[in-house]
Amino acid sequence: MAFDRLIENIVEKQNPTVAGLDPKLAYIPEYIKAEAFAKYGKTLDGAAEALRVYNKGLIDALCDVVPAVKPQAAYYEMYGWQGVRTLAKTIKYAREKGLFVITDAKRNDIGTTMEAYACAHLGAADIDGECAEPFGADALTVNGYLGSDGIKPVTDVASKRDKGIFVLVKTSNPSSGELQNLELAGEETIYLHVGKLCEQWGEGIMGKYGYSGVGAVVGATYPEQLKELRAELPHTFFLVPGYGAQGGTADDIAGAFDKNGLGAIVNSSRGIMCAWQKESCGERDYAQAARREALNMKKLLTDVTGEIKLP
Amino acid sequence: MAFDRLIENIVEKQNPTVAGLDPKLAYIPEYIKAEAFAKYGKTLDGAAEALRVYNKGLIDALCDVVPAVKPQAAYYEMYGWQGVRTLAKTIKYAREKGLFVITDAKRNDIGTTMEAYACAHLGAADIDGECAEPFGADALTVNGYLGSDGIKPVTDVASKRDKGIFVLVKTSNPSSGELQNLELAGEETIYLHVGKLCEQWGEGIMGKYGYSGVGAVVGATYPEQLKELRAELPHTFFLVPGYGAQGGTADDIAGAFDKNGLGAIVNSSRGIMCAWQKESCGERDYAQAARREALNMKKLLTDVTGEIKLP
Repeated sequence: MAFDRLIENIVEKQNPTVAGLDPKLAYIPEYIKAEAFAKYGKTLDGAAEALRVYNKGLIDALCDVVPAVKPQAAYYEMYGWQGVRTLAKTIKYAREKGLFVITDAKRNDIGTTMEAYACAHLGAADIDGECAEPFGADALTVNGYLGSDGIKPVTDVASKRDKGIFVLVKTSNPSSGELQNLELAGEETIYLHVGKLCEQWGEGIMGKYGYSGVGAVVGATYPEQLKELRAELPHTFFLVPGYGAQGGTADDIAGAFDKNGLGAIVNSSRGIMCAWQKESCGERDYAQAARREALNMKKLLTDVTGEIKLP
Repeated sequence: MAFDRLIENIVEKQNPTVAGLDPKLAYIPEYIKAEAFAKYGKTLDGAAEALRVYNKGLIDALCDVVPAVKPQAAYYEMYGWQGVRTLAKTIKYAREKGLFVITDAKRNDIGTTMEAYACAHLGAADIDGECAEPFGADALTVNGYLGSDGIKPVTDVASKRDKGIFVLVKTSNPSSGELQNLELAGEETIYLHVGKLCEQWGEGIMGKYGYSGVGAVVGATYPEQLKELRAELPHTFFLVPGYGAQGGTADDIAGAFDKNGLGAIVNSSRGIMCAWQKESCGERDYAQAARREALNMKKLLTDVTGEIKLP
């Protein structure tokens, strides 16, 4: 199971951090942009090339510190198909460096359409008998609003190809409660209901460390719900956004972990990517600044988890 | 407002149909695939080229019959960045032919990330002061599970650039009720609650024909709910999937329209795209077969709506 590999990576690195790769041009050092624009102009091609080089530097500096990276699809799509090509190259390079790659794309649809997304991001395309891997991530975030018809096609692909998914349960943003916190007539909230569906959806693809291939996105900014969901969903691995820039602290996410320090991986995007701007170090030091911040975060998180052990 | 342009297109063509462009390789005539594979091999490039040629033929045959097309992003992503390049080319070509283009991508995220999706699909990317349009559709489908934080960034872009969005409310698939039909403690269903949010989100971007720039996806397969939602959401334009292959009939969608025959656009994907396989006509006749089926569907729908008039 895919999350077995993620778990082994976390234990090996003693670090439950996933580094977000959300490369806005504003985060990228001038010298990288200047070189890309000199080659391709201030075009989608130029922007996509700057993203690629920036990501490569980050991956090189982070790959022995963090177990996983999480490229956010929106920031690649913003630069057109050229940006999406950089997404594919980034995923490939990160995997070559031993990183577990979670594509954060929050995809959702039904039936054969959802199967197409699953083949795109986790599987392979069948081209008249020839097989090609379009993006090849290890896990994908998905939105469960459409119910099982939107989940089964992707768990089918995930279980065949040793991949995982994270379903949005309780997201980190201020207005997440508008829908997710509404109370159902049966007196449970929507987010808890979706969380319980994750436990069901994961039943057929259980890993050897007690977690299934169906994880959940649960925001660091809601510590109470994080604790509640950890207790209610013992087989569901959590992807925790909202740490750092969005206000979540290491203490806030304490409730996300199990007694072995497993059960969750905490995302930091801007915190790591923009460390060079915060430190005001030289821009050519951006990757090492990211590494220093990732080491800081590792320390803060492992102060909470203690030694991370396989069960 | 974007839906004003859609409405004018519908009235001009006297046809409330949107043709889905979900180009699976299995739907594409052999001669198109053979030519593409001869040039690029059975690769992602070859598949993407076959999709492009197939779509161009469909658009040429349909552009004076239907007011709009709806490419489904999943079928392009399945063929990697090369497929996504075909999505961009398809959108551009369809718009040149006067079609209103709805990218069906069901995107969802929050804050600056959702803004990136909005810029990608409806807006422009700022590349160090230069502006580039990555995909340039007229409307985008979105998933509202994350609440207003996921909608406001896209309505901001939509209102500035004369574009629209369709929020998933009651989807056409069998398991859509697992979440969407749950009853809230206040005795309304989740889908109705999300529908009412659409009315709110649309308040600031009202068009001249009484519909806002925030539409809703409501499946043809649930005629009761379609009628209920039409009554409850007077300013929300509906995108109606599930007609034809999924089982919805023209009678099922009668409740989606207002007294002028407006208020909804009905999608057919496989029905139109695969008409040549159903008819067993020659494969080189695929585009004309699609046109014949689109004319059939127009007849069936306008039997229900009567003459479609501006209010």
